[in-house]
Amino acid sequence: MLEARWAEGKFLCIGLDVDATKLPESIRGSTIERTIVAFNRAIIDATKDLVCSYKPNIAFYESHGDQGMAALRETMAYIIEINPEIPVILDAKRGDIGNTNVQYALSAFEYLRADAITVHPYLGKESLLPFFEYVDKGVIVLSHTSNPGAAEVQELIVEGQPLYQKIAHLVSHEWNGNENCCVMVGATYPQQLKEVRAIVGDMPILVAGVGAQNGDLEKTVKYGLDSRKKGLMVNASRTIIFASREKDFADAARARAQELHDAITKAV
Amino acid sequence: MLEARWAEGKFLCIGLDVDATKLPESIRGSTIERTIVAFNRAIIDATKDLVCSYKPNIAFYESHGDQGMAALRETMAYIIEINPEIPVILDAKRGDIGNTNVQYALSAFEYLRADAITVHPYLGKESLLPFFEYVDKGVIVLSHTSNPGAAEVQELIVEGQPLYQKIAHLVSHEWNGNENCCVMVGATYPQQLKEVRAIVGDMPILVAGVGAQNGDLEKTVKYGLDSRKKGLMVNASRTIIFASREKDFADAARARAQELHDAITKAV
Repeated sequence: MLEARWAEGKFLCIGLDVDATKLPESIRGSTIERTIVAFNRAIIDATKDLVCSYKPNIAFYESHGDQGMAALRETMAYIIEINPEIPVILDAKRGDIGNTNVQYALSAFEYLRADAITVHPYLGKESLLPFFEYVDKGVIVLSHTSNPGAAEVQELIVEGQPLYQKIAHLVSHEWNGNENCCVMVGATYPQQLKEVRAIVGDMPILVAGVGAQNGDLEKTVKYGLDSRKKGLMVNASRTIIFASREKDFADAARARAQELHDAITKAV
Repeated sequence: MLEARWAEGKFLCIGLDVDATKLPESIRGSTIERTIVAFNRAIIDATKDLVCSYKPNIAFYESHGDQGMAALRETMAYIIEINPEIPVILDAKRGDIGNTNVQYALSAFEYLRADAITVHPYLGKESLLPFFEYVDKGVIVLSHTSNPGAAEVQELIVEGQPLYQKIAHLVSHEWNGNENCCVMVGATYPQQLKEVRAIVGDMPILVAGVGAQNGDLEKTVKYGLDSRKKGLMVNASRTIIFASREKDFADAARARAQELHDAITKAV
């Protein structure tokens, strides 16, 4: 599915991180579940021809409990309904022992019908097998995250290299037996992205943080593309979906998405 | 709350990991939500005087989507109702950037009303501030997990010590400004538990894996207790709650919990 999107020149991934404090007044429904679904449908309708993927972060739904989970399932079902060829990444950053990851995989791949999930590397390959074993699903492992304090742990030196590079090496050289792994790197760390690309070859990379976190778009594209000038998902969330908080929010989201799409195209 | 439980000689933490494939036929209700709540209430009623804490792992609820989340909230509300002095640890192993962890904290501490949450260390202190800032809640950071493949990443050598020790050092010496941090160690790695205890002083340690994962109970107590012979939560999940899958499941769970409580008392 990603290969088809890249062939169309689409690299933009829109993060559906529905912070309830930022939703436009005009969209509010009778319940938070209805409000979230209405908002997401409007954003998806306005941007669906510009994206290589959508990426809802489950935290923004969990904070609304059962209604949030229902809203997330409805959102993901809506994307499948309008275009089943757009992959949906569940940004969940899960990671537990194998017996428990079985349950997280059920949640992500069966209940929510995600095409991929983001996971923590800390418990090792053996713990992640329940995800890897879904051979038609993607497993995106955190390498270097976008937050200001990412270096504290991720740049500790192990075996002569920073931990995030060791993780990138493990994912690409030892964990990818089913060829369904990817890595995640923050756009706020372009040099580290370059290093990760050198390690993982043509493995897909999800890059987050080009929007509100001020990651460098040009360097993200330059350092993130694989040898075929593909293999990259560039995620922006807040800057697109909350481009306006007035009635024109969907149009504003489209305009911002188009702008980013054009900037990526130019950089590619 | 934990100090009061330890003063009563209680160290057992029961994991409410409601694997739907193992629930007794006799408890099945009209929906999975009703079934889970009925099961948990029976387990809690049968064991509430023996525990220092309960620890539901959210993965076993998420796999049932919105109904699972509602069942988890009802379960946690029930514990508060019968005895608000029993702390409830949400085993969620969360870890995202700060902006997103705000939402996870809302989910854990506001929607679910947990007293503590387990988290990943990979994104560093700065990312975890939204949890730490709930000064009356506990934040339990993974140090060395119980799974067979834990060493792959957690025992990589950084600055002359294995990563899990470096993490234990960061948590106890640099992240604990609000004095609400704990660490988590697997009972299947007693030597590593000993090392972590030496690093963290009298900080509480949550030890998982004495039950189905065959962790060594005697060594867990010997190496896990702090200098005051307190500071330890010993978790067992499957061996207690699924001790029987017949109508006597609650009695069987109590018997198994009593057995573990007695064995811990003897070892202490």
